[in-house]
Amino acid sequence: MAELSGNILVAQSGGPTSVINSSLAGVITEALNHECIEEIYGGLNGIFGILNENLVDLAAESQQTIRALRHTPGAALGSTRYKLRREEDLSRVLEVFEAHNIRYFFYAGGNDSQDTADRIAKLANDRDYELRVIGIPKTIDNDLVTTDHCPGYGSVIKYIASTVREMACDNASLGQNDFVSILEVMGRSAGWIAAGASLAKRRDHPEDPPHLIYLPEVAFSPEKCIEDVQRVLAKQKYCLIVVGEGLVDADGNYISLASTATDSFGHAALGGAGEYLAELIEGSLDVRARTAKLGYVQRSAAHLMSKTDSDEAFMAGQAAVKAAIAGESDVMVTLVRGDTDHYSCETGLAPLSEIANGVKMLPPEWIHEDGVSMNHQFVRYALPLIQGEINMPFEHGLPAVARLKNLPVEKVLPAFQPA
Amino acid sequence: MAELSGNILVAQSGGPTSVINSSLAGVITEALNHECIEEIYGGLNGIFGILNENLVDLAAESQQTIRALRHTPGAALGSTRYKLRREEDLSRVLEVFEAHNIRYFFYAGGNDSQDTADRIAKLANDRDYELRVIGIPKTIDNDLVTTDHCPGYGSVIKYIASTVREMACDNASLGQNDFVSILEVMGRSAGWIAAGASLAKRRDHPEDPPHLIYLPEVAFSPEKCIEDVQRVLAKQKYCLIVVGEGLVDADGNYISLASTATDSFGHAALGGAGEYLAELIEGSLDVRARTAKLGYVQRSAAHLMSKTDSDEAFMAGQAAVKAAIAGESDVMVTLVRGDTDHYSCETGLAPLSEIANGVKMLPPEWIHEDGVSMNHQFVRYALPLIQGEINMPFEHGLPAVARLKNLPVEKVLPAFQPA
Repeated sequence: MAELSGNILVAQSGGPTSVINSSLAGVITEALNHECIEEIYGGLNGIFGILNENLVDLAAESQQTIRALRHTPGAALGSTRYKLRREEDLSRVLEVFEAHNIRYFFYAGGNDSQDTADRIAKLANDRDYELRVIGIPKTIDNDLVTTDHCPGYGSVIKYIASTVREMACDNASLGQNDFVSILEVMGRSAGWIAAGASLAKRRDHPEDPPHLIYLPEVAFSPEKCIEDVQRVLAKQKYCLIVVGEGLVDADGNYISLASTATDSFGHAALGGAGEYLAELIEGSLDVRARTAKLGYVQRSAAHLMSKTDSDEAFMAGQAAVKAAIAGESDVMVTLVRGDTDHYSCETGLAPLSEIANGVKMLPPEWIHEDGVSMNHQFVRYALPLIQGEINMPFEHGLPAVARLKNLPVEKVLPAFQPA
Repeated sequence: MAELSGNILVAQSGGPTSVINSSLAGVITEALNHECIEEIYGGLNGIFGILNENLVDLAAESQQTIRALRHTPGAALGSTRYKLRREEDLSRVLEVFEAHNIRYFFYAGGNDSQDTADRIAKLANDRDYELRVIGIPKTIDNDLVTTDHCPGYGSVIKYIASTVREMACDNASLGQNDFVSILEVMGRSAGWIAAGASLAKRRDHPEDPPHLIYLPEVAFSPEKCIEDVQRVLAKQKYCLIVVGEGLVDADGNYISLASTATDSFGHAALGGAGEYLAELIEGSLDVRARTAKLGYVQRSAAHLMSKTDSDEAFMAGQAAVKAAIAGESDVMVTLVRGDTDHYSCETGLAPLSEIANGVKMLPPEWIHEDGVSMNHQFVRYALPLIQGEINMPFEHGLPAVARLKNLPVEKVLPAFQPA
């Protein structure tokens, strides 16, 4: 494969994670090793910034800042919700690439972002513009196919399982056997995140919290829920519930979010799935129910990130650059688990088109037959992903985060005309 | 003062904090230094357990466990919501004390708990039962009078300010200038906790999040709120709001919690203060609003406790024992701030009766005239309280917490007859 000289562009997309900037640091760090790479540019706010020619010079950032990216949550380059729909948008991307001699494009994101990267790669190929496009997996949702797991997932479930373990100490001390604690977590269409809470249980302690996990994969029944809670309170001093925000009933309708929804008692549902459960349980049993909803806190709690996850995210960024230099294109970096008992992980590659069109669901056989807990297969899969802690630096008592200078690259094209 | 030989009893009450067990560790550690102290007992679930003669032998716990209490959230001995109302309950407490030769009683809690301790001390005095009673301050609410601040407060605001700083990285990356992020925190009647979020701002960066803080002290106006959000979004890419759960309108009514409440647009309010704000803002402006509600997570996030707070909580426990040995009774340990620029803190004592009847409010002059931020006086007060981190030990990827053996002390009295 002939060496391809030129500039690289890296950008981020979709909902951020605690470790998406570790992948960015991996790209930048690896790029410095290769002489054929001239400039290292970042695209602000993903494809939207690229369309607007909002590029920044990442080589101008200090080594200190690049290192600090590894413990900075959010997408340091900015993300976007803009969808690349029009043919002229695709053409515009290539114009920007040509104008800045971009020969390597790295895009960290989920399904939609990998689809965008795929289309850019194919158009470049059609037009004989020499470009290597590599996707970097990123999502707390853990729903990308072809990869064993996704960077970002280990950290979100480490945070949630830690939160359950700590909150359980609080809840256990409240006494009096009439307390229900409800923690709402993210996961609109799959229960990967809620399932991760099960790691808070110690091995061989099935009585440990979370006592009940309600997953989008299991059709929700208010009657069964009340029975579940009664069963737990008959044995435990309290009942700790984790619920995925995407809870659905037997007909597949969200039972929680719409203000028009009513519970089985005809009450209007208040707020999200957690508030719905609280109302249902307090309305049916003589107990107190209290909710917490982790919202975007769960995907930005970098101080509690998994070191395994952070290291793999960095490795994925490095692997993307190595693959591109080796001549690969139109592929995404995957994480490949070793097949021995001792956890290990290396990177692989898979066609972008394959990722764009698939969604990896939580295997139904990993859900315990009681419908409200996970079995050992899930634990064996997920436990290695939360191992290890980082040393979060603090300044004046608070987590220290990187702030990019974002030195703009001079624009050379006419302004972008949005749809 | 003649030396008083006998046993000690320590118990915990009210809503737990991240550091209430540091005070417990302080009591136990200091008690071991004094030969006049024979047995070290704990009362399970506060006064309720004492009434039921549920005492445990704390001297039987390993040194390892006592040390681990310093990073274990929740009340390790259990808490209670039981109110000591009947005269016969008070008599029963003294019977239990006499039966087990309790001569020193330490009670960690808030206003109600200090009131309970005060009544026990006074009854013992009336009956010539030699007993020394010392209160240990404990509350995330920071509302006890006579003490500069309360153990538990520094840790809850360190957690909240850290959460704001990390979540801001996420929110800032979402781009597009139409995003409102709402974080609901505890604080039913005072804004001490919500105010603490202001520490997330860097010095001389008033534009840093949180952009708006809604406190129970400032009557909430929906119209002003909408103006506030518009003002922020005119300058910033997003608007991060922290709201105390106890938000009230100009008439002092909670505007958020009752399902019968309606906003100024006639909609039913959904859930708590955060959900209410989200509905109000999305209903009035063309923006997306997303909520998070920290619930009991915020008072149990021991992995992010303030070392200053933890050390002071331990010191308060030690000081309680020292004061009792020195002959003090019917007093609470207070935290006294040094009057130099460099923060320092030592302990003092104040009569229990004084604490029981007072509530320390957030000084109105510490609230910025815009009504939605705190001024430098608050920062000067609060910033020292969040300094320093502990090294949380982890096991298998999760915070390691202490689990007491709770070896029961043999009961010698007839069973308690509850009301």
